[in-house]
Amino acid sequence: MDKRHLSLLCDYYELTMGNGYFAHNLHEKTAYFDLYFRQIPDGGGYAITAGLQQLIEYIENLHFDEEDIAFLRGKGIFSDAFLDYLADFHFSGDIYAIPEGTPVFPGEPLVIVKAPAAQAQLIETYSLLTFNHQSLIATKASRIVRAAQGRPVMEFGSRRAQGADAAIIGARAAYIGGCAASACTLTDAIYGVPASGTMAHSWVQTFENEYEAFKAYCQVYPHNATLLVDTYNTLKSGVPNAIRVFKEVLLPQGIQNCAIRLDSGDLAFLSQSARKMLDDAGLPFCKIVASNALDEWLIRDLLQQGAQIDSFGVGEKLITARSEPVFGCIYKLVATENDAGEIVPKIKISENVSKITTPHFKKIYRLFEKDSGKAIADQICLHDETIDESQPLEIFDPLAPWKRKTVSNFIAKELLQPIFIKGQKVYQQPELPQIQAYCREQMDTLWDEVKRFEYPHHYYVDLSQKLWDIKQTLLYKNNQQSQ
Amino acid sequence: MDKRHLSLLCDYYELTMGNGYFAHNLHEKTAYFDLYFRQIPDGGGYAITAGLQQLIEYIENLHFDEEDIAFLRGKGIFSDAFLDYLADFHFSGDIYAIPEGTPVFPGEPLVIVKAPAAQAQLIETYSLLTFNHQSLIATKASRIVRAAQGRPVMEFGSRRAQGADAAIIGARAAYIGGCAASACTLTDAIYGVPASGTMAHSWVQTFENEYEAFKAYCQVYPHNATLLVDTYNTLKSGVPNAIRVFKEVLLPQGIQNCAIRLDSGDLAFLSQSARKMLDDAGLPFCKIVASNALDEWLIRDLLQQGAQIDSFGVGEKLITARSEPVFGCIYKLVATENDAGEIVPKIKISENVSKITTPHFKKIYRLFEKDSGKAIADQICLHDETIDESQPLEIFDPLAPWKRKTVSNFIAKELLQPIFIKGQKVYQQPELPQIQAYCREQMDTLWDEVKRFEYPHHYYVDLSQKLWDIKQTLLYKNNQQSQ
Repeated sequence: MDKRHLSLLCDYYELTMGNGYFAHNLHEKTAYFDLYFRQIPDGGGYAITAGLQQLIEYIENLHFDEEDIAFLRGKGIFSDAFLDYLADFHFSGDIYAIPEGTPVFPGEPLVIVKAPAAQAQLIETYSLLTFNHQSLIATKASRIVRAAQGRPVMEFGSRRAQGADAAIIGARAAYIGGCAASACTLTDAIYGVPASGTMAHSWVQTFENEYEAFKAYCQVYPHNATLLVDTYNTLKSGVPNAIRVFKEVLLPQGIQNCAIRLDSGDLAFLSQSARKMLDDAGLPFCKIVASNALDEWLIRDLLQQGAQIDSFGVGEKLITARSEPVFGCIYKLVATENDAGEIVPKIKISENVSKITTPHFKKIYRLFEKDSGKAIADQICLHDETIDESQPLEIFDPLAPWKRKTVSNFIAKELLQPIFIKGQKVYQQPELPQIQAYCREQMDTLWDEVKRFEYPHHYYVDLSQKLWDIKQTLLYKNNQQSQ
Repeated sequence: MDKRHLSLLCDYYELTMGNGYFAHNLHEKTAYFDLYFRQIPDGGGYAITAGLQQLIEYIENLHFDEEDIAFLRGKGIFSDAFLDYLADFHFSGDIYAIPEGTPVFPGEPLVIVKAPAAQAQLIETYSLLTFNHQSLIATKASRIVRAAQGRPVMEFGSRRAQGADAAIIGARAAYIGGCAASACTLTDAIYGVPASGTMAHSWVQTFENEYEAFKAYCQVYPHNATLLVDTYNTLKSGVPNAIRVFKEVLLPQGIQNCAIRLDSGDLAFLSQSARKMLDDAGLPFCKIVASNALDEWLIRDLLQQGAQIDSFGVGEKLITARSEPVFGCIYKLVATENDAGEIVPKIKISENVSKITTPHFKKIYRLFEKDSGKAIADQICLHDETIDESQPLEIFDPLAPWKRKTVSNFIAKELLQPIFIKGQKVYQQPELPQIQAYCREQMDTLWDEVKRFEYPHHYYVDLSQKLWDIKQTLLYKNNQQSQ
């Protein structure tokens, strides 16, 4: 795949602000931005961060060619000096990020950008876009995969995706979240997510009748036949024809790897009936695949009702995260540097307390119980703070600072990794299967209470005392000024 | 922009079925597919079709290069003969479509594909993807634009879009639906949708104070300054500083083209208060732009409450169609041809009556009242039927065939246009502004009752008597067979 030229995939105001900073000679002033989210979709207890690989590719490919410059010049509002600057543009800043596949929580930066102001501004739109999209789908996939309780979940949604990338890269994110395969062939070709599929109703309709259609399929794919049994009548026609063909074509060859797919009707009732018919016919090894408007809630209910389903195909409700199709990451200025190179923390005030930003250049520790390996809390610290694991640590709820707790016998792991330093990539991105495995491992460090669908336990994201003090000072100062 | 190589952006089963048709020498058998939808999002009374341009580009670029063939060969299930066929692949079928920007209704084919079975199958996924995505966004944009009652609506959602295409092409679809501009710079560069933007909070925070930030901006952009007034306190600080800067920097130059942007808080109250402050300060020409979680319902309510807003910036709720993020187009086999080249209509049965397909190769007429120019109904006919405008026409509801009505003094316009004939493009795609203008004109042909948000009037999509009779015959025949 050629790398796509997406440098102009930015809000126009990133460019007008860049031109404005340039005009006021502020474009090289160092700025610090946090990319974070405020709320977990679907009322869940955790999210899965994803989208870093596409950000890396975007940053490495970020440049403005002659056509871009000519387009911008035609707007008549950008100075020649700024356009010359863009023509020579290379990202020269630092980027830190939490690795893809990590469970993450509201308020903690998934990405920190430290860069000259014009540069940090320019990468805002795409940074948000890639993390918002892929974290949304990875999080949804993780929920659906957990509902399936170990049964494979296949991503089938390309046709309902919001554009080509939503299909291709959405399937990548779904795989990070735990899906076993995708219908999207291109995602296999690019990212190695196993492509998977069965047949459409049109296959069955193209032949004289259902029996001929099934037989023709098993003749071509004897080792991997999944027959769609609901074109005419699932229990009266589809399942009996499948049984007949499996017996006629596969069993004489000693092949037991076969399946039927249910794609309509009541999946609990139909799967139980079909299971009995298959078992009675001496095909207990024949698997049952189900699809049709599935999501985590329906899968959970089907399994609670004893549905006999071995794997799930999930379409539009996964690839668009239909129940809540927006992951609300934001990108906020948290500090600048003064002429002496000192960090000046910045705060954005809001009437809404949850919208007040946390200032300063940060790092994040995740604290794990040494005995159980379970995650206790995350602590956001100043960039130059360290946590000493040998000493008891007092942590507190930043919204209720009187609620304090001392933890000991813990391991503290830093979440943010350096990705770019002075514009150079310093991060070795893992392969996709490694990311999926890492996600599974990290999910195991969360208590089940945090992973519950309904009213999950609130995982703590705390501030260090030093960071909390700085935030309070800025809040009081701002309040005095606006009186 | 280089054309992207998206030929493998198809469900894997399109390829396994293609290989299967090839093995059974059915790949050249002519198949007819309808692409249509069953339900209008958000309970609306109409949808806007969009996505054709991307389908045309996809078809024109559809090929399998050496890398694709090597990838597929590695799967171990495709025959060498089929892979050779793919290596030489060119689409050789016919495609008919309703032009982009046309209001459309459930049950009528937006696209008809007549092609050799393997080819018609292969293009299923991308055809659905592009129409589902862009019709979704164009329809949502049309609703939001109508709620704004003539005030410009700007699409601001790139950062929350589901991937790069969702941002770039989503903004294209939003423009078709009536948006005046987009924040997405790349959509301007590619499609000419005017790029638009103001400033971020980070601009305000980067300067010593809000006044300095506003002044700096107006110095660079005196002719196009929209100041974001909610970084600290909208009415105590933001609006007064904007007024001061407009008076100091713009008025001495005689410039009246300026605006403020409200991005948080109660937009009805704040816009009315800000309007009064601006008017009292002698700036009645200063416009007010509003953004923050807007959609058609909130815009309608704000205007009903007397909000003083001149234009709207709409983000995530438009670019993801948040309230209903899936447009459910499906792609169904409706006929094949036998060896004599005769059309054999096909039907897909379902327990759910609305899921039963309408068979055969079709055309669609839209009937307009000659006097008012308003649309009366659409009639789906057999491909070789014609409607004689000089004769009264009896139409009937296909779900209630006893409800009949005779229309006269009407104009009948065919909706489906030939796009490809025998693989050759025969359609001249209009420019995007023409599509937007056409959409606006066509929307004017719908009665207001059809455009209502709540419980709109149901627009009739009827079948011709001949088509209805064929469908009934197939239904009875199928029912007898499955007894």
